[in-house]
Amino acid sequence: MKEIHVGLIGFGTVGKGLATTLLQQRDRLRQRVGAAVLLTRIADTAITSLPEEFSSVLFSRDARDVLTDPDIDIVVELIGGIEPAKSFILAAIESGKHVVSANKALLANHGREIFAAAVKNKVEIGFEASVGGGIPVIKALKEGLVANRIEAISGILNGTANFILTQMTDHGAPFAKVLKDAQARGFAEADPTYDIEGIDTAHKLAILMSLAYGLHVGVGDITTEGISTIEPIDIDFAREFGYRIKLLAISRNHGSHVEARVHPTMVPEDHMLANINGAFNAIEFTGDTVGDILLYGQGAGMMATGSAVAADVVDIGRNILSGSINRVPALSFLPEFIGEPTITPMSALTCPYYFRVTALDKPGVLSKISGIFGQCNISIKSVIQKSRHADEPVHIVLMSHQALEADVVRALAEIDGLDICTAPTMKIRILSDDHE
Amino acid sequence: MKEIHVGLIGFGTVGKGLATTLLQQRDRLRQRVGAAVLLTRIADTAITSLPEEFSSVLFSRDARDVLTDPDIDIVVELIGGIEPAKSFILAAIESGKHVVSANKALLANHGREIFAAAVKNKVEIGFEASVGGGIPVIKALKEGLVANRIEAISGILNGTANFILTQMTDHGAPFAKVLKDAQARGFAEADPTYDIEGIDTAHKLAILMSLAYGLHVGVGDITTEGISTIEPIDIDFAREFGYRIKLLAISRNHGSHVEARVHPTMVPEDHMLANINGAFNAIEFTGDTVGDILLYGQGAGMMATGSAVAADVVDIGRNILSGSINRVPALSFLPEFIGEPTITPMSALTCPYYFRVTALDKPGVLSKISGIFGQCNISIKSVIQKSRHADEPVHIVLMSHQALEADVVRALAEIDGLDICTAPTMKIRILSDDHE
Repeated sequence: MKEIHVGLIGFGTVGKGLATTLLQQRDRLRQRVGAAVLLTRIADTAITSLPEEFSSVLFSRDARDVLTDPDIDIVVELIGGIEPAKSFILAAIESGKHVVSANKALLANHGREIFAAAVKNKVEIGFEASVGGGIPVIKALKEGLVANRIEAISGILNGTANFILTQMTDHGAPFAKVLKDAQARGFAEADPTYDIEGIDTAHKLAILMSLAYGLHVGVGDITTEGISTIEPIDIDFAREFGYRIKLLAISRNHGSHVEARVHPTMVPEDHMLANINGAFNAIEFTGDTVGDILLYGQGAGMMATGSAVAADVVDIGRNILSGSINRVPALSFLPEFIGEPTITPMSALTCPYYFRVTALDKPGVLSKISGIFGQCNISIKSVIQKSRHADEPVHIVLMSHQALEADVVRALAEIDGLDICTAPTMKIRILSDDHE
Repeated sequence: MKEIHVGLIGFGTVGKGLATTLLQQRDRLRQRVGAAVLLTRIADTAITSLPEEFSSVLFSRDARDVLTDPDIDIVVELIGGIEPAKSFILAAIESGKHVVSANKALLANHGREIFAAAVKNKVEIGFEASVGGGIPVIKALKEGLVANRIEAISGILNGTANFILTQMTDHGAPFAKVLKDAQARGFAEADPTYDIEGIDTAHKLAILMSLAYGLHVGVGDITTEGISTIEPIDIDFAREFGYRIKLLAISRNHGSHVEARVHPTMVPEDHMLANINGAFNAIEFTGDTVGDILLYGQGAGMMATGSAVAADVVDIGRNILSGSINRVPALSFLPEFIGEPTITPMSALTCPYYFRVTALDKPGVLSKISGIFGQCNISIKSVIQKSRHADEPVHIVLMSHQALEADVVRALAEIDGLDICTAPTMKIRILSDDHE
């Protein structure tokens, strides 16, 4: 029986998920691959012992023990973060080992250097687990949808942010309270910045865009806004107009330039993305051949992520066994065909908008505000004005037709400068299926 | 530049979709594959000329011209049906050519012979387009979810049946009228039997089960009921209880035996499958590692299916170029590990049920009917009885808890034998997420 030897760096949640998966699926993988896929060595700085079921696995606190083990074919990096993960991965590549990683932050920030090193050293890099947890989304882009020009990507890529928005929607609770609950229940990290401010989503979008378009997209190319400013009142108004608020990664392929943005988005309630709740992820692609495709599943978690890492290990294992390393280019396109992106400036973005203006309840306010929108070429589709107690400011909610972001910025600067406006206007972009 | 030569048998809708796809995506495929993927020859009994954009492609009315062309690497069969498709595919295999086919009827009926011939002749068979149109569902099962024991499959696999049920739900129209409209609009074929009676869905389920479980599942293993008996009143009652009626393919993996059934099913309205409308398809897998995964997209159509066929062509092309033929076994498991299925008898099925009893509006009817259910171990969860005009029979609708199909059959035989029952009782199984 042939054997594929795997070394693991990082024995945290996902590392344990991979180790458990390879053990539990041992017979099934042998029957599918025609070889034993064996985890032979684990390194983790905090490791002192291994659970009994892994008694045949060597372990140490030093990643070099994995990196220098000549028997190891594939190094799996699951420690996350930039360093030392980056050094470990580059060391593995330079010693001719294949690499599997779930590290989206690293790939979105230093992918170019890492992929170049892999090409130079003729090794493979698998990163299915970096986006969408156990959903085989990377494979879909690189292989299943290979005969497509991808025209649009829309996705819910961060389970924590989606969990928080779902809780806010279901219970009408404010962001801060829901976040605290989520942290207490283990659904959000102690430092939730990456999740709630859209940074993690931007990392993942950079990876998807690179594969979809054959462009070197980095996290710096992506305009990113988080969900911490969303108030329950916006969720209520969204519902009143037939929308749900979701943190979406959005990209549109305009050919000469591509949109790249992460922000809270109003999604029509009958759209599939509006109904992805809790910690689940979903990614929608529009291909010129296939039309709309949506992939849904758990976007994180020990076992779901373990499933994706194990699939990469098997994929590379099959290439080792059949002598077909780099059978599919790591970035979907051959390196010589990968270009530099031209990102659509946000000011040139066109979409429908939701505005919530907070103003004193005085005669002529609505006329003044709608006048400014009109002067800025923003056409209003519907308005709700709700008075509450006298003396209190009112919320004037306006839904626009397609409008230019530059015009919106100009209008809001003027509106927010009015004496009668008592708080900055809330602006939320609306998902529109017009792909051009 | 290396070249992959493709020969196409069958220049109908999907054949034209493939030819168009390979032409339109020519540059993109070259940049992704590192070779030109060229359609060089087309055979179709009805062909007299080719559109100008295919002027470089040879064509004839004789499939043998494709089968005997020594330059052709991959033969794509898109004529459908059993013969002559089967003979053409076997001839291609025997002459050492790889095969791509969308022919689910052929694979579900004669897959064993065809796959055995491919193994013997060391060629590949791609059949991504046979299930779920452009959705990369076969690849997901064979590669993306490789490290999973698949525990359940639930899917909407036939766009025509789903289109009809969606129209019935949206417009309250009877089956026969909606079918007629669908035929007039080209959404249903002149002979719709395969689509509406669940046979096409059963073909696809047989293929998915074979891949998911490593079992030789044929269409004869699958209990199949269609949608032609569904009445608007059932759709209305379903809605009243919070369900939608869908034609589902369902399989559960019990280890020693597997469920295999296609039938109209009541799906809870907040379940994703309840919200797949029109001609779209969706397939849900439950894996022991990954949890629930759902894949959604167009299940048919010229270009969507062309996308899947082209992906198979590329997959095999990459194996040709990298010398890794049969890198992934055609049926996901190596042939020596594929077993014979033990199918759960329908009498042993357990699920919740919907019953619509049609009876005379007389005192004691409800008591009599519910008494029979009770005697047959069927516990009723809720009841609606609606009287309409006096003298007319009433509909008594009962929703059960989990019940054994054998008990249900026994109860309904007794109920339908009562003098007071004026029509056979309608029975619809309810989707339950209890996988055991």
